[in-house]
Amino acid sequence: MAEARLIDGKAIADGIRAKLKIEVDELVSKQVTPCLVVFRVGERKDSITYVNMKKKACEEIGIKFILLVIPDTVTQASLLEQVQQYNAQADVHGILVQLPLPAHIDEKTILDAISLNKDVDGFHPMNIGSLGMKGRAPTFVSGTPKGCLRLLDEMGTAIEGKRAVVIGRSNIVGLPMSLLLLGRNATVTVVHSRTPRADMEALCREADIVVAAAGQAELVRGSWLKPGATVIDCGINAVDDSTRASGYRLVGDVAFQEARAALGPQGAITPVPGGVGPMTIAMLLTNVLAGARASLT
Amino acid sequence: MAEARLIDGKAIADGIRAKLKIEVDELVSKQVTPCLVVFRVGERKDSITYVNMKKKACEEIGIKFILLVIPDTVTQASLLEQVQQYNAQADVHGILVQLPLPAHIDEKTILDAISLNKDVDGFHPMNIGSLGMKGRAPTFVSGTPKGCLRLLDEMGTAIEGKRAVVIGRSNIVGLPMSLLLLGRNATVTVVHSRTPRADMEALCREADIVVAAAGQAELVRGSWLKPGATVIDCGINAVDDSTRASGYRLVGDVAFQEARAALGPQGAITPVPGGVGPMTIAMLLTNVLAGARASLT
Ligand SMILES: NC(=O)C1=CN([C@@H]2O[C@H](COP(=O)(O)OP(=O)(O)OC[C@H]3O[C@@H](n4cnc5c(N)ncnc54)[C@H](OP(=O)(O)O)[C@@H]3O)[C@@H](O)[C@H]2O)C=CC1
Ligand SMILES: NC(=O)C1=CN([C@@H]2O[C@H](COP(=O)(O)OP(=O)(O)OC[C@H]3O[C@@H](n4cnc5c(N)ncnc54)[C@H](OP(=O)(O)O)[C@@H]3O)[C@@H](O)[C@H]2O)C=CC1
Repeated sequence: MAEARLIDGKAIADGIRAKLKIEVDELVSKQVTPCLVVFRVGERKDSITYVNMKKKACEEIGIKFILLVIPDTVTQASLLEQVQQYNAQADVHGILVQLPLPAHIDEKTILDAISLNKDVDGFHPMNIGSLGMKGRAPTFVSGTPKGCLRLLDEMGTAIEGKRAVVIGRSNIVGLPMSLLLLGRNATVTVVHSRTPRADMEALCREADIVVAAAGQAELVRGSWLKPGATVIDCGINAVDDSTRASGYRLVGDVAFQEARAALGPQGAITPVPGGVGPMTIAMLLTNVLAGARASLT
Repeated sequence: MAEARLIDGKAIADGIRAKLKIEVDELVSKQVTPCLVVFRVGERKDSITYVNMKKKACEEIGIKFILLVIPDTVTQASLLEQVQQYNAQADVHGILVQLPLPAHIDEKTILDAISLNKDVDGFHPMNIGSLGMKGRAPTFVSGTPKGCLRLLDEMGTAIEGKRAVVIGRSNIVGLPMSLLLLGRNATVTVVHSRTPRADMEALCREADIVVAAAGQAELVRGSWLKPGATVIDCGINAVDDSTRASGYRLVGDVAFQEARAALGPQGAITPVPGGVGPMTIAMLLTNVLAGARASLT
């Protein structure tokens, strides 16, 4: 049987970024340079990598990127004050605090201090609440779930009235993803670490759309999937691989080859890497641009 | 086969209210009288009925009830100002705006203006967002879903790792209910008006817990239910009944007799009336009392 179509997140994200570049140029010609401020607290290697990726992506399309490297001895009060300073600054359109924060700082206090209209990560409870509620719209939706939805739309996947399963319920991926799909009128089931394995498998087997965001290497097997379904794999997991110079390779939350075969030619699946990852950053850029545009009015 | 157990919401709510009365007396002895302010805008019959029920329930246990009857010609600005006045008043512990509001007033603007620590209806997006998010807790949870969860707990119904289906996704019942069940580690599916009937039936048949909040008379049939499941019926629907003097009777969203038989002796179900309804009010009282207690600290 033929394999499922690949959802080429990299190519789709490249297309989005090329368009964004034109829109940024237009704004700049109106004397507005979209500007993102990123707080990086401490020297975690993963945070440095993620922040550098965001910096590169911003600068490539002309978004001004202000990196604030804060020592991890910073007091909560001082960090809070700095966030508030940038809230007040009209030429800053997005504020992002790279997580995780050092243990002595209360993440909630810092995240909630970011102005709603600069919360380009969409992590504020007001944004999450508004995402779920009828008759409301969040100012920003977090990049990863927004990117997953965009991939579905780019592939022309039907959502309304379809069965969707979201694996995971974190604040930054699973929860907003399930609310987004609900808002698009899917019948949504959320499974998580307390869901018995047999239920998880059976639910996935009935699903037209599976979004995996569990952070568990190759959790979802080919046998869990319905032919013709669409699978969006958010997972980024490093597994040992002695054949690589690095000693590891990245895999998703879905056993990719098995899944691709099981889904068949009517199905579709994102690769890891090159699926959701590039979309997350493209959606962040979209959010910063939207923030800059909103500042015009 | 023996029928399912009845979940006697009326008796459970009576027990809760008796306890609350003692707690209110204690607070009063510390010079704090719990106080709820209710805005009733216009003269809708249903709103008058609901507000009167709340008034009676408050006064019975010693909660001070301030009823503000506002003409439906009120401007939004004036209504907003009045809400803000009560926000500022330290001896007011809960503010409730009876919905629906007249069409010329933006519901969101009014609801969002209520102080989070007086939002005893739990309708603020911050409260809904915090309900769904990990590591967060809402200040208040809306009375109906809170009451449904309390009924499950009073019956000793296992929730963690169980399959739950919530029918409906409104801001005041379905959505917060699904988030509450998720927070208690159920595997939660939300179905709604765009869910194909066959999916809804199949999902209910697999569910250990069904919460019906669709506002559709006797939507859920006995044949949809798994023996041993627990059914919480939020629906309040008036159907024509020529044998009654009133010309109508109230039924839930579940075909009660059929369901009770299908669920069998290991199952449980709420009646309508006398199930969720009394709990909604008892939970509102609980919220006002919590607000009054919090004002002490
Ligand atoms: N592509 C990108 O740009 C991004 C990728 N990611 C990746 O997405 C994945 C998820 O990230 P994130 O949401 O932050 O992770 P979290 O660890 O915060 O959340 C994981 C979620 O998955 C659930 N889960 C864990 N194990 C299982 C299991 N065996 N079966 C079912 N559910 C399980 C957890 O359940 P419970 O709630 O019960 O603990 C939790 O809800 C990670 O691999 C991460 O690297 C994340 C962000 C951006
Ligand atoms: N006991 C109490 O104290 C209270 C009782 N209630 C009662 O609870 C019920 C629900 O109230 P509320 O949430 O405010 O109602 P809403 O009308 O706001 O929401 C109804 C929800 O049910 C969904 N729905 C409608 N028809 C169907 C259908 N045929 N199949 C599946 N889903 C359907 C709707 O879907 P969609 O989103 O697609 O439109 C919507 O999400 C009502 O009967 C109400 O009277 C409410 C509050 C308090």
